[in-house]
Amino acid sequence: MHDQYQDRIRMPLLRERVTSAASAAESICDGMTVGMSGFTRAGDAKVVPLALAERARREPLKITLITGASLGNDVDKTLTEAGVLARRLPFQSDPVLRAAINRGEVMFIDQHLSETVEMLRTRQIAPIDIAIIEAIAITETGAIIPTTSVGNSASFAILADKVIVEINLTQALALEGLHDIFIPKHRPQREPIPIMSPSDRVGTTAIEIAPEKIVAIVITEKLDSSSTILPADADTAAIAAHLVEFFKHEVELGRLTERLMPMQAGIGTIANAVMEGFIDSPFEHLSMYSEVLQDSTFDLFDAGKLDFASGSSITLSEAKGKQVFGDIARYKDRLVLRPQEVSNHPEVIRRLGIIAINTALEADIYGNVNSTHVLGTHMMNGIGGSGDFARNAYLAVFATKSIAKGGKISSIVPMVSHVDHNEHDVDIIVTEVGLADLRGLAPRERAQLIVERCVAEPYRQMLRDYMAEANHGGGHTPHVLEKAFAWHVRYRDTGSMLS
Amino acid sequence: MHDQYQDRIRMPLLRERVTSAASAAESICDGMTVGMSGFTRAGDAKVVPLALAERARREPLKITLITGASLGNDVDKTLTEAGVLARRLPFQSDPVLRAAINRGEVMFIDQHLSETVEMLRTRQIAPIDIAIIEAIAITETGAIIPTTSVGNSASFAILADKVIVEINLTQALALEGLHDIFIPKHRPQREPIPIMSPSDRVGTTAIEIAPEKIVAIVITEKLDSSSTILPADADTAAIAAHLVEFFKHEVELGRLTERLMPMQAGIGTIANAVMEGFIDSPFEHLSMYSEVLQDSTFDLFDAGKLDFASGSSITLSEAKGKQVFGDIARYKDRLVLRPQEVSNHPEVIRRLGIIAINTALEADIYGNVNSTHVLGTHMMNGIGGSGDFARNAYLAVFATKSIAKGGKISSIVPMVSHVDHNEHDVDIIVTEVGLADLRGLAPRERAQLIVERCVAEPYRQMLRDYMAEANHGGGHTPHVLEKAFAWHVRYRDTGSMLS
Repeated sequence: MHDQYQDRIRMPLLRERVTSAASAAESICDGMTVGMSGFTRAGDAKVVPLALAERARREPLKITLITGASLGNDVDKTLTEAGVLARRLPFQSDPVLRAAINRGEVMFIDQHLSETVEMLRTRQIAPIDIAIIEAIAITETGAIIPTTSVGNSASFAILADKVIVEINLTQALALEGLHDIFIPKHRPQREPIPIMSPSDRVGTTAIEIAPEKIVAIVITEKLDSSSTILPADADTAAIAAHLVEFFKHEVELGRLTERLMPMQAGIGTIANAVMEGFIDSPFEHLSMYSEVLQDSTFDLFDAGKLDFASGSSITLSEAKGKQVFGDIARYKDRLVLRPQEVSNHPEVIRRLGIIAINTALEADIYGNVNSTHVLGTHMMNGIGGSGDFARNAYLAVFATKSIAKGGKISSIVPMVSHVDHNEHDVDIIVTEVGLADLRGLAPRERAQLIVERCVAEPYRQMLRDYMAEANHGGGHTPHVLEKAFAWHVRYRDTGSMLS
Repeated sequence: MHDQYQDRIRMPLLRERVTSAASAAESICDGMTVGMSGFTRAGDAKVVPLALAERARREPLKITLITGASLGNDVDKTLTEAGVLARRLPFQSDPVLRAAINRGEVMFIDQHLSETVEMLRTRQIAPIDIAIIEAIAITETGAIIPTTSVGNSASFAILADKVIVEINLTQALALEGLHDIFIPKHRPQREPIPIMSPSDRVGTTAIEIAPEKIVAIVITEKLDSSSTILPADADTAAIAAHLVEFFKHEVELGRLTERLMPMQAGIGTIANAVMEGFIDSPFEHLSMYSEVLQDSTFDLFDAGKLDFASGSSITLSEAKGKQVFGDIARYKDRLVLRPQEVSNHPEVIRRLGIIAINTALEADIYGNVNSTHVLGTHMMNGIGGSGDFARNAYLAVFATKSIAKGGKISSIVPMVSHVDHNEHDVDIIVTEVGLADLRGLAPRERAQLIVERCVAEPYRQMLRDYMAEANHGGGHTPHVLEKAFAWHVRYRDTGSMLS
């Protein structure tokens, strides 16, 4: 019966391990640590986790779930509702899971995306018991070819004792060759990662493991969830325009060429819109060394602006997904998907000199950025790769709309209520109002620039008043500590930061 | 007359450029950016800056001063008092300069020590007009051999149009061969830094520049300022003992061997005492990949515990300095001094897997660390290299005494008043009370551990009360925003954090 999977399971012996999701899920026991494929809704394991949730209705079953990043297909939601998640790392973006995290029911470990497998490899966190990896195929030697993301899948499969593979028949075999699997050696044998350009291929096209570790293979036909980004609006278009102007000026100053530097763009609507802004720009032969490749990457290819894109996943809107994956051969020689440890590696980011463009939840007058916590306490999604990039980049840009909730929230505040990227790491703050270039400036200078360039009234005057009062107390970074969070408290109590 | 300097100025032509400090200082004009040698009081330019201060009494003279790190010989004090400093980066530790910074009179740009020359090389900050470099000698080809630090000296000399060399006759010629000058290429020609072990030498022993750039040579005989570290006390000994116990446990778990991993230790009394703690430990064949090498490095050599130490400077107490520099040949083959860009480079730190041990000014219950700002507003010294190491390390340890000012300050607070190292980057908090291992823990778990392990009464109960109140509001990282800085405000207003 399994002859039909000859092109998908090329090692004949392994065809005998095809089984149901429910049966595969039996390998997972209460208390285990499970490593699952999936990065920004792309290439996630789709059926075994749901079978696990089903089982949890009948028996006690709690696991630590580690993934690449966020999952699609309501996997986090379903596992949360079934009470399966005791611990979750390193990233998530699901509303139901988020609520459970904020109730203190699921312990969420919010990590830099490059660091999770480094900690697993050195056994600094509990080891992976079993890995569940979505694949387009298994090779003649038992190697696993991932689908639309690599994420942490390779290290999960290498480090786990047992591996379950979900072969997804809806993922085109044409994806084969897209991946570049490079795994750093254990220290002290660790060597340089030999990537000198975003297009360098330094590894293998499949995840090589001992085939006997593959304990079950499940056949699926579920699609990746589409991305949820919104189209550009006047504000995101203004943010993109400010950045294009800034880069034009950098080229005029001779700091950059028209190729700029390899770019990273965070996930989401604003970063996608910023990248779209490069379509109508004077820049040419751009390249990306990023983590998630969104619609804008392929729009830039189609516009002839982008030469090459390196990422760890491809997450597209429904329409763009149909176009791209229906014709992947057209893009394949300009794309590579890497393990997130490599896409986000400090060594490569510093060497290539990345322009990192990420989204701020809020920023403060001195250039500190909050990417994760609403009102300083409630987790949104997680830091993701923004820290991997910002802290080692050539240029760290953080973009946000200047206001939220119809003006009841100012995204620029006296002091951020949680710091994910601090003043030492943030180079540029940009809102629809304007752009502040903080490089080489002292805190007092930065504050003036951010308030005058990036903030509109009435918050601009409110921040001027705060700064004036803070300056009475002096210091390198003046603050009025008892009022630093007054805006947040006011929003919590009255529904608006406006006084 | 200059024949006496044959061994110090080996290129005959250059001997004609020997001049007085005052004459050399004439090359420096109002508004210039000056790059000066000096890293943690070691190898600083000692006489030309003082001549500059002298000149400033007679004419308007303001400069941007960039160094490696902190200076000795009251150079920062003298320049501040003379009103010469308009801008200062990337680090300082002088009380007079600090006060001027906190009055807003000197613009201080507090940078990661690895990043300053990267920003200069890419012209993201104003270029160096002139460099002043202390040297033991100039070679036959005009290359500059540094003294007790490398810091940013090599890139300053390479990037500046003009170079003034201070030949220091008190610095032994035996230091020649100690330095390893490796300068990363401009992108996109940038290649991996080929350091695979702390002892790898990858560069030249002198700073190679076009000799015609050397516009003046000044002969000096002033000594480096000695370090001001205090001897170990009961608290620092307890911190060291907790760390030794922790590492013994890591070895038992098989995560580390008795060689541990290459270690970095921040500057100052606590980090020095922690390193001294390894003398009476079961660990062997230790190595350091650090920035400043302090007394403890040589005590560890003498105890047979340390195989090799890589740094960017050597800063010793007076007694230890006499011993070590009087007999440097004994240590020389176990030492290397590198540019701070290389000693602190994210690529090498991540590759080698550094154990980074730095000092916290204060830490909070969730593991965020303040290294720089007293009460959130007033600069102490700067972030230095702590961020370069912590954010890319195998293990980031932050040590502090649990209290300061006789108990009127708790070093563990509900929320740090400034964030230099955030919860994503901090692995271990250790005080004299105990050690909290935060790896793989969610914020609520970290808070419990830090409060119970690292804090003594009465602050322990005060933090328990804060956590209990914060938990009512829920969230991934519970806080009571209006009380988050109540302890700091109370200290400011009453002189004590105790209620």
